[in-house]
Amino acid sequence: MRKGEQTRQEIIHKAASIFNQRGFDGAALSDLMRATSLEKGGIYRHFNSKQQLAGEAFDYAWQQALETRFAGTQEITNTIDRLKQIIWNFRDRRAGVVQGGCPFLNAATDFDDGNPALRTKARRAFNSWLGRLRSIAEEGQSRGEIHPGVDPAELATLIVTSLEGALMLERLQRSPEPLNIACRHLEQHLDSSVRAKKSKAQREKT
Amino acid sequence: MRKGEQTRQEIIHKAASIFNQRGFDGAALSDLMRATSLEKGGIYRHFNSKQQLAGEAFDYAWQQALETRFAGTQEITNTIDRLKQIIWNFRDRRAGVVQGGCPFLNAATDFDDGNPALRTKARRAFNSWLGRLRSIAEEGQSRGEIHPGVDPAELATLIVTSLEGALMLERLQRSPEPLNIACRHLEQHLDSSVRAKKSKAQREKT
Repeated sequence: MRKGEQTRQEIIHKAASIFNQRGFDGAALSDLMRATSLEKGGIYRHFNSKQQLAGEAFDYAWQQALETRFAGTQEITNTIDRLKQIIWNFRDRRAGVVQGGCPFLNAATDFDDGNPALRTKARRAFNSWLGRLRSIAEEGQSRGEIHPGVDPAELATLIVTSLEGALMLERLQRSPEPLNIACRHLEQHLDSSVRAKKSKAQREKT
Repeated sequence: MRKGEQTRQEIIHKAASIFNQRGFDGAALSDLMRATSLEKGGIYRHFNSKQQLAGEAFDYAWQQALETRFAGTQEITNTIDRLKQIIWNFRDRRAGVVQGGCPFLNAATDFDDGNPALRTKARRAFNSWLGRLRSIAEEGQSRGEIHPGVDPAELATLIVTSLEGALMLERLQRSPEPLNIACRHLEQHLDSSVRAKKSKAQREKT
């Protein structure tokens, strides 16, 4: 990697935790300078605008969050068990996420109006989160593990809204309860309503 | 009501829709002056600070939201049906809510850090929302309508986090789907896992 590109990446990584903790408006140039140990010119040599830097910082933070949530799940063959692990990863694996917590939740609430470019990024992040869960549900259906009556897109939306909603309340309440309740509920829902019922023959075989 | 008190209430009502749409920092004095048709002195004769006005505006907006969500539900005798109606009210009855949407969601995301007094208001709002749902669940258990294994506080938390999380995504996506999915899911959950199973004798009687 060329030196310039390496500096650029370092700025993105450091800016990501500033934007993720303080929001777009709240992230001051002085914060960015302190975090990167660069002057204004040293930062903006690599980016056209604060918005461009915030956008790339968001992409990086979101990539890290998705990798953390899906870590170690590809190896889980059964798709119901894989979805469960993703749900528990959401609660338990936060060390890999850029400081400031879920970048999608931050973006969805911070970029709500006012900043269309960043809002578009938050929407795309939602769709990528949704898309990965939906494709697991589709795989589960094609393998007969997930009940054919389940709508994969609905299931994905339910998981994302439950987890992100609970995370929002965890922050407000400074209590783990909302997220614990959401995770347990989703797990039960997967077991009782999403998992395909085994036929009598299958049950006798196992 | 004395003239001064009447003016004070009018300021609160008008300020509520400004704060609820723009957030605490986003609500400019010029917005508040335009909405109330008063000069700065005319507004702040009645309030010590922007924070005091924002606090009272929030209390008013939240009161309106709760009344709207629980409207027409007290008459529903069966507690499962009452909870369902509250869920559908959340989705469908928005005309009575102060402009800008759910004040609690706005407060939870706007006041997240930085403003401890308003954050405390948001927490109290959450607890009042939760408390009213929990007491319906408790009533349902004491009347044998709700399964004794259900934890009323957990059920209340699940309903609030699902609805508020879905509302947040509805806003981001500008799509009714997340909230539709959450409402349908909660309804099914109430029917399949929360409602007490009728005994054989009861089933035969009906």
